[in-house]
Amino acid sequence: MTSPLLEQLIDAFRVLPGVGQKSAQRMAYHVLERERDGGRRLAEALAAAVDKVGHCTRCRDFSEAEVCATCASPARDVQQLCVVESPADRLAIEQATGYRGLYYVLQGRLSPLDGIGPNELGLDRLGERLAEGEVIEMIIATNPTVEGEATAHYLGQLARRHKVRPSRLTHGVPLGGELEYVDRGTLSHAFGSRSEMP
Amino acid sequence: MTSPLLEQLIDAFRVLPGVGQKSAQRMAYHVLERERDGGRRLAEALAAAVDKVGHCTRCRDFSEAEVCATCASPARDVQQLCVVESPADRLAIEQATGYRGLYYVLQGRLSPLDGIGPNELGLDRLGERLAEGEVIEMIIATNPTVEGEATAHYLGQLARRHKVRPSRLTHGVPLGGELEYVDRGTLSHAFGSRSEMP
Repeated sequence: MTSPLLEQLIDAFRVLPGVGQKSAQRMAYHVLERERDGGRRLAEALAAAVDKVGHCTRCRDFSEAEVCATCASPARDVQQLCVVESPADRLAIEQATGYRGLYYVLQGRLSPLDGIGPNELGLDRLGERLAEGEVIEMIIATNPTVEGEATAHYLGQLARRHKVRPSRLTHGVPLGGELEYVDRGTLSHAFGSRSEMP
Repeated sequence: MTSPLLEQLIDAFRVLPGVGQKSAQRMAYHVLERERDGGRRLAEALAAAVDKVGHCTRCRDFSEAEVCATCASPARDVQQLCVVESPADRLAIEQATGYRGLYYVLQGRLSPLDGIGPNELGLDRLGERLAEGEVIEMIIATNPTVEGEATAHYLGQLARRHKVRPSRLTHGVPLGGELEYVDRGTLSHAFGSRSEMP
């Protein structure tokens, strides 16, 4: 390497997910050759986000304010609360659906073997929130994995304890997919829960 | 989006090559969820590299010093000069071969339609360097593309004008490849230039 700073930059790029030695080299060369301004902006955005972005005290999603814009918005329906595992899941739902209620981001899922119990996911605070009595429906949108299902089960009980109606995303055949390539579990479930055509 | 800073970060990540909206989101969430220290290091490395890394005055490769470590090293053979298109090409040769000579990085290739002529590639300075008389062999390692070949042709003439011996990387069948999948041009060339077995 001709430049120690360049070497450090390549090394630093490897903290990004899915970026190995070759991609890191490509990114470093690209920034230095063609995108110095963009690189400067990225450095500033990164430093600002890492230092200032914390968690919203209401929904636990990322936010630099104490209460995020969604939680603070008077336009959202406080009677619906959608519980997701991660900020990325929340974003996917927000972008794909017309949902106008609020969110609660667990930042994980129940996983006793990794030491992640109800407290680590802020379920005590979620309970307090349900106890406030505003929420009528809790939409449980954890991932359809074993741990996600266990978390959903726990959340369902929590909701019922506070007289909140729990609901769950429908499982079934994805739109636009081909039956041939749908996994057996999903196909069997979709077949068993078939509905009459209108 | 719950956080404007997060939104800016996702946007800023998109200057990196091969990073679209989804990857940028994934990178931003990954850094904030799991790699705040790494993110801080990346921001610092990026700011430092963008501000301080310029070009070596001898070889035109990236360097924060006026003359890079390779050009300044007394251990390198000044009689051999390897000309490459990009810093990445130089790095690939340095990592794969035992080459101990010096390099010259064009930072591009001849491309008259894009306004890239001999001066943009520093070929005037390369000519002056050859005129110094130290270099005996010039290894032309431009890419085997139409523009790379044209550049190689020009470089070969430049070398001969200064009584320097030009050489070129061998074309042929890649090691470990299968003949079935080698492109026709390469196979035909390798067949035509076959050598007797020892």
